[in-house]
Amino acid sequence: MRNFVFHNPTKIIFGVDTTEEVGKESKNYGKRILLVIGQGSVKKIGLYDRVVKLLKEEGLEIFELEGVKPNPRVDLVRKGINMVRENNIDLLLAVGGGSVIDTAKAIAAGLTYEGDVWDLFKYRKPIKPTIPIGVVLTLAATGSEMNGNAVISNLETQEKLAISSPYIYPKFSILDPKNTASVPLNHTLYGIVDILSHVFEQYFDRVDDAILQDRFAEAIMKTVIETTPKIIKNPEDLNARTTILWCGTNALNGIIGVGKEQDWATHAIEHAISAIYDIPHGLGLAIVFPHWMKYVSDVIPHKFANFARNVWGITGDDDFEVGLKSIERLIDFYESIGVPTKLSKVGINDEKLEEMAEKATQFGPIGNTKKLAKEDVYKILQMCL
Amino acid sequence: MRNFVFHNPTKIIFGVDTTEEVGKESKNYGKRILLVIGQGSVKKIGLYDRVVKLLKEEGLEIFELEGVKPNPRVDLVRKGINMVRENNIDLLLAVGGGSVIDTAKAIAAGLTYEGDVWDLFKYRKPIKPTIPIGVVLTLAATGSEMNGNAVISNLETQEKLAISSPYIYPKFSILDPKNTASVPLNHTLYGIVDILSHVFEQYFDRVDDAILQDRFAEAIMKTVIETTPKIIKNPEDLNARTTILWCGTNALNGIIGVGKEQDWATHAIEHAISAIYDIPHGLGLAIVFPHWMKYVSDVIPHKFANFARNVWGITGDDDFEVGLKSIERLIDFYESIGVPTKLSKVGINDEKLEEMAEKATQFGPIGNTKKLAKEDVYKILQMCL
Repeated sequence: MRNFVFHNPTKIIFGVDTTEEVGKESKNYGKRILLVIGQGSVKKIGLYDRVVKLLKEEGLEIFELEGVKPNPRVDLVRKGINMVRENNIDLLLAVGGGSVIDTAKAIAAGLTYEGDVWDLFKYRKPIKPTIPIGVVLTLAATGSEMNGNAVISNLETQEKLAISSPYIYPKFSILDPKNTASVPLNHTLYGIVDILSHVFEQYFDRVDDAILQDRFAEAIMKTVIETTPKIIKNPEDLNARTTILWCGTNALNGIIGVGKEQDWATHAIEHAISAIYDIPHGLGLAIVFPHWMKYVSDVIPHKFANFARNVWGITGDDDFEVGLKSIERLIDFYESIGVPTKLSKVGINDEKLEEMAEKATQFGPIGNTKKLAKEDVYKILQMCL
Repeated sequence: MRNFVFHNPTKIIFGVDTTEEVGKESKNYGKRILLVIGQGSVKKIGLYDRVVKLLKEEGLEIFELEGVKPNPRVDLVRKGINMVRENNIDLLLAVGGGSVIDTAKAIAAGLTYEGDVWDLFKYRKPIKPTIPIGVVLTLAATGSEMNGNAVISNLETQEKLAISSPYIYPKFSILDPKNTASVPLNHTLYGIVDILSHVFEQYFDRVDDAILQDRFAEAIMKTVIETTPKIIKNPEDLNARTTILWCGTNALNGIIGVGKEQDWATHAIEHAISAIYDIPHGLGLAIVFPHWMKYVSDVIPHKFANFARNVWGITGDDDFEVGLKSIERLIDFYESIGVPTKLSKVGINDEKLEEMAEKATQFGPIGNTKKLAKEDVYKILQMCL
């Protein structure tokens, strides 16, 4: 396996009713808090009131940036940076899912950069030390609660790009399964696709001797696949929510990815789709991943065979054949939980495939398992139709 | 599963030749370094010279505490505390295995306590913020390179006790598989038993719904069991050494233990044995664990059945029966790699069983899976004869 550095300093506070800790925990970082929230769902479920009450009980002063959308926008990030500057904010507190956390991270990163924050994404300018971020998570999906990544969309340029830095790991993340239990079922399922997709990006690569990491990855996949039907049956099943929540965090906190080459082409392709069509990230991933798998499975047939045998329990001697079956099983699984796996099913036709392929490869060929040039991405998108 | 806090800020620098980083990494913490080492093996393998050279290249000033023994002694800890005070040390740099790391941790803990350091162990006095610790690991075993635990022996009182604190996590740990490849085979194997034993302590408890953690635990156990014969065949197999090394760290960095009740009775029993007879910790664990398992398996037969089916591939419908078979398989495995599983085989007779049982339960009944009073421990020790 490859040499690596693993350094994940985020403090995870996990469990039912751990939301109660938010005031005391936030207080460790100062007095002036910028609450970053979405479009009102945290208000509907009562979480907003609870957090505000807990912060006030500790004597903290609250400022508010509301309106983060799925596929969060750089415009709001810019607004947030101004608010932090004008109000001398000590801590960014993201209460929501990945979009809200990523907005807070982008604000933090942009704050200590002298130019426009989009430069950090577009021109990969270096990110500097900045103010702390805290999280109260409401959706098991992106893993952003325990890593240094953020993905932001720019509607003007129709781009969706990522940054990564040790300075934007949350200082603490409160993972209270109760807060995830009120997420609508379709978004819960897109979150689950996101979790599985993170595992796929790290698992299906050309590093064969990261045995423990791959077994950890299989553990997450098996657990997610067996737990999802329980959530569909009863969306308020707190045990199942707890399990999925912890799977989501571990899918992208580094533990299954260290020492691996990893791929990440599918995420780049999906970002190109949702930058143009604004579909949920998880939905886009459910569409692209099985087709990417078909396109690359001949490069690492043994990996797909492991996926087939160790995750799905598919038997058979021929690695390539059982590997193909595993991809079909994944498609069946997504369809069975009501998540489509074709662009046509979400109203996207072949009109902008070229543009998407161009966008996905704007920094050069993508992925590692098979280096994908623009033409490869175009072919995969055609398979997705 | 139980609510938990997971916060593991240790920076892991992993891979072949990462030892080269020790100078640059140490420099981040100051100028004056107290090197903590064992009884000369790091000098024999050339690691000592290499580390000293790298530290000097960064202009660091080196002080030295040599002579840490397996089952490290509180006497040397006291000497180390004095050295740190007299020389204004900025960083404790442990170069060695768990004993050396634990000595450094105990020095750090004792440094900011006004009384004698043994009070922290014996009377569980609170541990305060202290100076940083760095690690260059030479043995895959204790997991001490990525946690806040330390175990120290007191020859005078014939006690072996543990402390645990967020303040004594190493700031960084360099895990270079090459440094583990020169460890003699018997000590490598005791280390492997230690790794498996850490997994057992966390896996065999009464929490049934920490599904991901238990699958992670099974991943470590399977990987260790299948990799050990490769090391016996070729002790210099760097791939196998790499795999075992990363398993050892993950076995006790929190990732498989969060949300679990855990047990830890077997460690307390082993500490009582090695406090009196000074046998290697891993050897003691190989002797006690199978017998502890037999004594408690009726409380959690389904857990032993999971162990049997998911780790050993044992088939069968009756949980209790397949569970018993898994214990026999573990004994066979230990015997097959040349590690004894009986006290009589290491020259210990029934003379001091009573004293050991007394020592192991000095703070009250031990373990959680089955609460073990002195009489229970005595019975388990008899089974170990």
